[in-house]
Amino acid sequence: MAEAPVQALTVGILKETASEERRVAVVPAAVESLRELGPAVLVETGAGAGAHYSDDDYVSAGAEVVSASELHERADVLLSVTRPSSEILRRLRSDQTVVGMLQPLNDPLLIRDLADLGVTAVSLDGVPRTLSRAQPMDALSSQANVAGYKAVIVAAAAYDRYLPLLMTAAGVARPAEILVLGAGVAGLQAIATANRLGAVVTGYDVRHEAREEIRSLGAEVLELPEVESAGAGGGYARALTDAERRFQLGALSDQVHRFDIVIATAQVPGGRPPLLLEEDAIARLRPGAVVVDLAAGPYGGNVALSRSDDTVVTDRGVTVIGAGNLPATVPRAASEAYSRNVRTLLFHMFSEGRPVIDLDDEIQAGVVITHGGRVVHHAAAAAVEAVTTAGGVEPHESGTPY
Amino acid sequence: MAEAPVQALTVGILKETASEERRVAVVPAAVESLRELGPAVLVETGAGAGAHYSDDDYVSAGAEVVSASELHERADVLLSVTRPSSEILRRLRSDQTVVGMLQPLNDPLLIRDLADLGVTAVSLDGVPRTLSRAQPMDALSSQANVAGYKAVIVAAAAYDRYLPLLMTAAGVARPAEILVLGAGVAGLQAIATANRLGAVVTGYDVRHEAREEIRSLGAEVLELPEVESAGAGGGYARALTDAERRFQLGALSDQVHRFDIVIATAQVPGGRPPLLLEEDAIARLRPGAVVVDLAAGPYGGNVALSRSDDTVVTDRGVTVIGAGNLPATVPRAASEAYSRNVRTLLFHMFSEGRPVIDLDDEIQAGVVITHGGRVVHHAAAAAVEAVTTAGGVEPHESGTPY
Repeated sequence: MAEAPVQALTVGILKETASEERRVAVVPAAVESLRELGPAVLVETGAGAGAHYSDDDYVSAGAEVVSASELHERADVLLSVTRPSSEILRRLRSDQTVVGMLQPLNDPLLIRDLADLGVTAVSLDGVPRTLSRAQPMDALSSQANVAGYKAVIVAAAAYDRYLPLLMTAAGVARPAEILVLGAGVAGLQAIATANRLGAVVTGYDVRHEAREEIRSLGAEVLELPEVESAGAGGGYARALTDAERRFQLGALSDQVHRFDIVIATAQVPGGRPPLLLEEDAIARLRPGAVVVDLAAGPYGGNVALSRSDDTVVTDRGVTVIGAGNLPATVPRAASEAYSRNVRTLLFHMFSEGRPVIDLDDEIQAGVVITHGGRVVHHAAAAAVEAVTTAGGVEPHESGTPY
Repeated sequence: MAEAPVQALTVGILKETASEERRVAVVPAAVESLRELGPAVLVETGAGAGAHYSDDDYVSAGAEVVSASELHERADVLLSVTRPSSEILRRLRSDQTVVGMLQPLNDPLLIRDLADLGVTAVSLDGVPRTLSRAQPMDALSSQANVAGYKAVIVAAAAYDRYLPLLMTAAGVARPAEILVLGAGVAGLQAIATANRLGAVVTGYDVRHEAREEIRSLGAEVLELPEVESAGAGGGYARALTDAERRFQLGALSDQVHRFDIVIATAQVPGGRPPLLLEEDAIARLRPGAVVVDLAAGPYGGNVALSRSDDTVVTDRGVTVIGAGNLPATVPRAASEAYSRNVRTLLFHMFSEGRPVIDLDDEIQAGVVITHGGRVVHHAAAAAVEAVTTAGGVEPHESGTPY
C-alpha cells in the first residue's frame, strides 16, 4: 500500500432509487478488493436489501454504512447500477465522480448539467462491446446474460405445457418450440437456457454472422433469405431500410405461428428497439403461446402490445410479457456480475486515488461522459447539442422537465 | 361398432368449479377416442377455457358443447378433474356415474349422500400406484409429475441467482444447491428438472429404497443415518414414530442451511402431509433462499409458515411458496396427461355402454367409491362410519357443513 494521501479515494455505494430495482452496484464480497483504492468504502443504509444483503453483511466485509446525505458528502466516487435521480446528480461537486449505467443519451439536459457542475460522469453502458480487454467491464453484457436466462424461466412459468419432451405412463408430451429473436448476449443465453430445459430452439438474427453462434448452441437458425446480413460491428445490427423492415415483419409473421414461445431480445444502442412482431403476428400465435419482450420499455419494444413491466393476455389467450428489466429480478446474480464490471473499470480508470482521464483510451472514450466542465463523450455531446439548439429548453427555467 | 343401444353411453366433460383451477378432464385431442364409448361426448360451455381450448376446438373434435344443466341432465358419465361442487353431486341420479379425483376421505358425508342417491362415484386418486397395468390411469402420478416440474420453474423464478454454473467475462457464478424432500413422482421430476437447469441437486426420502432412484437421476442422497427406512409399499412411507419424527426434524434443520432452494414434496395418502421443516429450520436458511412446498394445503404442509397458494417472505428474506396445486398452473400438460388417465380407466371399467363393476378387480377396488346404493370402497366406508358415529352430524339438517 502507498501512503495515505495517494490512496485516499472514498468510494460510496448508492442505494438504487428506481422502482422495482433490486440490484446493488457492489456486493459485500467485492468490498474488500475496492478497499485497495482507498481505506473507506461507504454504503448507503439499505443499499443491498433488495438483493438480500444486510447492512451487517457490508460492515462484516469492511464497509462503513452511512446515511444517504453522509455518503453524498463524503464519497469521491459514487457507484450505482442505474442512473441516480436527478436530485442526487444535481447536488454533486466538481471533485466527485459518478459511475453507473447512466444512459446519457436518454437525458441530454441532465448530462449538460453534470458537465456544468464539473462532475466526472462515467457510464458503464458505453464500454466498447467487442474490445477483448474491456469485456470484464461490460455491464450491458453481464446484465443481458441475466435477462436472457430469466426470460426462459419467465416464459416457462407462464407457459401451459412442459418445455422438455417427457415420456411418462400417461403418454408423451412433445417439447416446446421456442423462437429467440436477436442473438446477442441475451438471445444466446436464452437459447442456451431453453436448450438446457429441453425445448426445441430456433434463433433469428439479422446479422448473418450470428448464425454460427446460434448453431453452436444446438439451435436451429431461422433464415429469412431476402433479408441481407445487417451486421454493423460492435455486436449490433445496422438500421434496416424501410423495405427490409417491411419484409422482415411480414416474413416473421408468416413463421411465428409454429412456435409456442417467442423471446425477443433485439436492441439498438441508444435508440428505439426495432419492432419485430406486429399485432397480426401475435394474432397468429396459438392460444396459450407466450411472448417475452426483453426490449419492452418506455421507448417501445420488439413486440406490439408489450408494455413495460406488465403482462397482457390477448382475447385469443396469447400472453405477452413486457420484461425490460429482468436483471432486477435476479438481483444477486446481476449484482455480483455488475460488481466485477464496475470494479474492473475503476481499477482501469483510477490511479493513486484519482481518475486519470485519457480520452485516447478506447475504453475511456466510450465511458467518460462529462469531465472538467465539458461533455467529452461524442454521442452524448451531439445529443446535448441537438436538444439545446432544437428545443431551446432551459431546464432551470422550466419547472421539472425530467 | 356394435349396435346403437349397446354403445349408447353419453360422456359429459364438466367445467371445473374450484377457484384458480385451469385444467379440464378431457382435451379436444382425446374426444375422438372417447366417442368409441358412445356417439355423444358433451362438453360444458367454457370447460377448456382455462387450458386455452375453446368451445370451437371441442366442436371440431366431434363433441357437443352444451350448458351445465343440459350436461347434468343428459350425461351418463360425468368427468371432472377435481371434485365437482356438492350442489352438482347431490343432483346426480342413480343411473349416473361421476369420475374424477374426488378425494373421498376429505368429505365422508358427501360420499354417504352419493351412496344414498345410488350414484356410482369413481375416484382416480384411488388407482393402485404400484400396479403396472394401472399406471396409465394413475392421475396422482401424472399430476405429481407436472407439479415436480413446475416447482423448479417457480423456485427459479423466485430465486435471486442463477440455477446453473455460468462462466462469463464477469466471472463465474456458482450453481444453486437444491434439496428435494420426498422422492416420489413429484420429487423425482423436480430432481430431473433441477438437474436439467444445471443446479446441484440433493434428494431425501425416508424410504431407503428411493435412494437408488435419486442417484440414477444424477443427484446426491441426503442420508440421515439414524432414521430407519420407512417404506410402506405403494410408493408411500409409513407414519414415523414420534421419536423418528423428532430426530428427522432436528437432522433436517441441521442440514438445510447449506441449500439455496428446498422443494418439499412429501405426501401421505388420505392424511395430513408430514411436517419436515419447522420454523427454526427456515430461520437457518440464508436470506434469498427459496422454499417451495408442494404439500401446502388446507390440511397443513411439509413446511411451517407455508400457506396454501400463497407466498410468504420472512423477515430474513427467505421466500416460502405454498404450491399445493401447481398442476392447475400448467393446465395443458396436466389436462393432456389426465385425459389419458381418465380415458384408460373408462375403457377399463365400461363395457357395452355401462359400468361393469367388479370389486375383485384390484383397480376397481381402489377407485369405485359408491355403487348400487352403498359405499363400497373400504377406506371411504370406514371414514363415513367414523364421521357418522362420532359426530352424528346429519348433513341435511345442519345447513351447509360442507
